[in-house]
Amino acid sequence: MTTPDTAPNFDKLRIVLVETSHPGNIGAAARAMKNMGLTRLVLVNPQAKAWPAREAVAMAASALDVLDGVVVAPTLEAAIAGCHLVIGTSARLRNMPVQLLDPVAAAARIEGVRATQDVALVFGREISGLSNEELHLCHYHVHIPVNPDYTSLNLAAAVMVLCYELRKAALQAGPVLAASALDWDQLPATVAELDRYLAHLEQVLIQIEFLDPNNPRQLLRRLRRLYQRIQPDRMEVNILRGILTATETALAKREQRNT
Amino acid sequence: MTTPDTAPNFDKLRIVLVETSHPGNIGAAARAMKNMGLTRLVLVNPQAKAWPAREAVAMAASALDVLDGVVVAPTLEAAIAGCHLVIGTSARLRNMPVQLLDPVAAAARIEGVRATQDVALVFGREISGLSNEELHLCHYHVHIPVNPDYTSLNLAAAVMVLCYELRKAALQAGPVLAASALDWDQLPATVAELDRYLAHLEQVLIQIEFLDPNNPRQLLRRLRRLYQRIQPDRMEVNILRGILTATETALAKREQRNT
Repeated sequence: MTTPDTAPNFDKLRIVLVETSHPGNIGAAARAMKNMGLTRLVLVNPQAKAWPAREAVAMAASALDVLDGVVVAPTLEAAIAGCHLVIGTSARLRNMPVQLLDPVAAAARIEGVRATQDVALVFGREISGLSNEELHLCHYHVHIPVNPDYTSLNLAAAVMVLCYELRKAALQAGPVLAASALDWDQLPATVAELDRYLAHLEQVLIQIEFLDPNNPRQLLRRLRRLYQRIQPDRMEVNILRGILTATETALAKREQRNT
Repeated sequence: MTTPDTAPNFDKLRIVLVETSHPGNIGAAARAMKNMGLTRLVLVNPQAKAWPAREAVAMAASALDVLDGVVVAPTLEAAIAGCHLVIGTSARLRNMPVQLLDPVAAAARIEGVRATQDVALVFGREISGLSNEELHLCHYHVHIPVNPDYTSLNLAAAVMVLCYELRKAALQAGPVLAASALDWDQLPATVAELDRYLAHLEQVLIQIEFLDPNNPRQLLRRLRRLYQRIQPDRMEVNILRGILTATETALAKREQRNT
């Protein structure tokens, strides 16, 4: 892709939750999906007797459209029948390993085919995850790197992490928002503007006898480094210079009263 | 670091939750933290009458040690007083922008100083997030890239995403240093030290009639933002305060000559 994808289309990607015990987790998963722009949710044999369950609705907040679109399937095979790519979440390494991806790699794999292929991302039961049989139905496994001393992820938290990586992968076609100064409300000061400020500061520091004009080096260097690091914008430099001018005026006023 | 950090130490990093309404969210946040290896949780004025609340314990699953270690603070200022770096979560852009990071950049920023500096990652209220006043106390804002049509993130989901990025950043063999403080010759000033400087600055600005004490808001905010961005080290704060003291002395000297 060459243009930023600000509203990625995840229509061919389904999130599959297998035998979820707590409807509240389904609702929270639906909310996480919608936060990240996903909409298709498939439930394999959910354990709540009635569907949609009340707790699911409560936890879904305003993601009720995701719940309304839920498809219920009797088995994982049925849930993924039309898919080209199936990735299953795994909390631990198994004795017959399938290619194991981290969330970033899984998202990249999905991003590469999202527009053209049907994809399923499968999450297991709250307590026991996916069975070995179910994991064998997956092309890849994905493992969220957790604290080895506490690996029990909440289901909706796991859905959140993977949907977040999916969205990130989709948005990365566009500009990454790393420490962006794009939305700053003012232009940064130029080097010359900052230099004028530093020269003004030096004068005032001499006036208030904070700076010995015969030995200014180390202090002025430190102040220059400080204000260069800050990269003040124009309005900020104007404020800083205004403070210096006000200091000079206040000093002069007291001086004049003297004469 | 040259070797992978398989059990990153997050002892100097605190997660701060401001005025959380639902104790269940606190429990779920504690669980997410422990999943990612974090342990220090600070609650600012939690809304549940009794603490620890029952729902928090239920949602924490086995992360009870995190709940047991909770510190409750009356205000955000108190919660972050000893910190060198404060990053606040923001759901939207504000009219006076602070440097905005995405979660990856925020995690990289924290990773660069995690071993040596006290850091706070601050999350706001479920409905309304952090107030403008609270956001002004932060050096950076971090924004999770969400579906613009549905930006309402569950609190624990937001904690999960950021803790996950922190763990990822720590597990990367060569952490990316966004703005390294490693080679700096001085520790950065704490929040409290900078606050004392800003209070002193305010006094002097009133004295030199640059600041109208009846209408200080916008100017003081801009100055706070400026000096937070700079993250001055201790020696620099001492220099800045020395300038203020010298200004006062110079003013007083001229005043005295007058009498």
